[in-house]
Amino acid sequence: MIETPYLLFLGDAPDQLAVKVAQGIKDWRPENSVGQFRMQGCGADLGLKDMTLAEGKAAGAKTLVIGVANRGGMISQAWRDVMVQALQMEYDIASGLHNLLRDEGPLTAAAQTHGGTLHDVRVPSVGYPIGNGVKRSGKRVLAVGTDCSVGKMYTALAMDAEMNKRRMKSTFRATGQTGILITGHGVPLDAVVADFMAGSIEYLTPDNEDDHWDHIEGQGSLFHASYSGVTMALIHGGQPDALILAHEPTRTHMRGLPDYTLPSLETLRDTALPLARVVNPACEVVGISVNTQHFGEDEALSYLEGVEKRMGLPAADPFRQGAGRLVDALDAM
Amino acid sequence: MIETPYLLFLGDAPDQLAVKVAQGIKDWRPENSVGQFRMQGCGADLGLKDMTLAEGKAAGAKTLVIGVANRGGMISQAWRDVMVQALQMEYDIASGLHNLLRDEGPLTAAAQTHGGTLHDVRVPSVGYPIGNGVKRSGKRVLAVGTDCSVGKMYTALAMDAEMNKRRMKSTFRATGQTGILITGHGVPLDAVVADFMAGSIEYLTPDNEDDHWDHIEGQGSLFHASYSGVTMALIHGGQPDALILAHEPTRTHMRGLPDYTLPSLETLRDTALPLARVVNPACEVVGISVNTQHFGEDEALSYLEGVEKRMGLPAADPFRQGAGRLVDALDAM
Repeated sequence: MIETPYLLFLGDAPDQLAVKVAQGIKDWRPENSVGQFRMQGCGADLGLKDMTLAEGKAAGAKTLVIGVANRGGMISQAWRDVMVQALQMEYDIASGLHNLLRDEGPLTAAAQTHGGTLHDVRVPSVGYPIGNGVKRSGKRVLAVGTDCSVGKMYTALAMDAEMNKRRMKSTFRATGQTGILITGHGVPLDAVVADFMAGSIEYLTPDNEDDHWDHIEGQGSLFHASYSGVTMALIHGGQPDALILAHEPTRTHMRGLPDYTLPSLETLRDTALPLARVVNPACEVVGISVNTQHFGEDEALSYLEGVEKRMGLPAADPFRQGAGRLVDALDAM
Repeated sequence: MIETPYLLFLGDAPDQLAVKVAQGIKDWRPENSVGQFRMQGCGADLGLKDMTLAEGKAAGAKTLVIGVANRGGMISQAWRDVMVQALQMEYDIASGLHNLLRDEGPLTAAAQTHGGTLHDVRVPSVGYPIGNGVKRSGKRVLAVGTDCSVGKMYTALAMDAEMNKRRMKSTFRATGQTGILITGHGVPLDAVVADFMAGSIEYLTPDNEDDHWDHIEGQGSLFHASYSGVTMALIHGGQPDALILAHEPTRTHMRGLPDYTLPSLETLRDTALPLARVVNPACEVVGISVNTQHFGEDEALSYLEGVEKRMGLPAADPFRQGAGRLVDALDAM
């Protein structure tokens, strides 16, 4: 559990793309951030109030969140100096960087001296159980993709936000570092040891009220040779009542695998649903989330209409149109 | 790589079941063991020559292999004393116990002093790559099960032994601790971090001669809620040319999951084959391995005949009948 609110560290990010994590926090949990901390040469701006560490502290910030990707696989001296100062001012620090905070001597020393916590959200901090497959109460929805990085996290966050707006009972369940930083907790599934993957997702999505929805952040794809095992564990550990098919229609091959084409939505449906029904025989595919960012408005709408007709399921781009129709489909179950 | 030959440590094993690992080594790699080391009260016997540590050393043993399961989740003082003596006599030690040798102070100290190696085969010693899905040369066969522990390792070892007898090019590829101790190397897949599972199997089964067969040790089951992700990674990382369906017909529910029934062989085939074809479109299901240990001879033969007719594929119990017909099917590909 990462303590909120945050001061968002953008460092010397060269551009907006480098602060994707901070942008996600600002977009989905604006109430979690008091401001942004930028260093000389920073080319990114979230439109939040610029603050020094002292100003952030005065505004109530508990945790300095590293909202920027680093370059060259190391934490620079300049970043480290800021982090040590933050620890001296009794901030905690949270990071999803590959380079762990805990591997930096000056940070662990300062954290120990000042009683701060270093949250490396890329590595599990919990001893997860082995999955037991026992049916849990409450409802769960999982987006499964034709490929990696097609908008599964966005879809889950958008459905959660829509349910919150409707005052439905709903929780976003993060399974990756960005999601964990956005919500302050979750399971870094790609770093969990194989035997405990399904169990970690059972742990993440426990028994709940019958009308409560967990929106489980999807990972990988059943059709992605590198990560399909992670997706499989999510399906069996997550025990979804509903699947959303997620797709990016302009992708010419599987991400990072130039020799692999994407499956059709029909193939994805016919593969994922029987596997989900192993653990939850009542599971249904209820909708399709299409990432139409590379289409113009007309092209996007006509593509969505075509998919909807072809698949007989509501198809929407939650970024373009909101997740209302996907939530309608869940609500109707 | 664990140095052979071994002296097999049976300790104070209460019975034969407790020395399953040592039995596997003796059955499958008899040339790898010079003898057995038993302590007072040992209720197990492999029929190997009983040796002291000194006698084992004189017979050429390089590694003391812990071939017995321990009780109560700890390494006893009596075991530890033997291990320290072994290290002093310049043995290496190899173990698949959950309790790691490296967590025992006296063992790490003795290993350091005498230059010995502690092999904890339950934890990876290699930084595996991320899987890349690139087609590899050579041939690979993987057994996939209707459940865990239905005889997949045995099937792979039996097919490898049969191919060796026929002077075909063949390697058993271990993915679990028993298999690793039997062959001296492999990937402890259940302990690999999620993101690297498929890559670890690509690493384990590299490019090879066109007529060489890798027999990849299967793990878990696509239908086992706890471990299906591991199985999925094996299928996509292993890139099998051939699948063997493995089944134990008297199992009333999935191992450890009392609420889950086993899938039919047809369902297993129809689930596993399309998933395997994602990475290897030429993959075929070529045979069925049935563990008939709970059947009498007549019942076993009639069951196998029925399965063979029903599935249109050779069905055999490699323990009862040898793996000849399964290897015939592979050889015919």
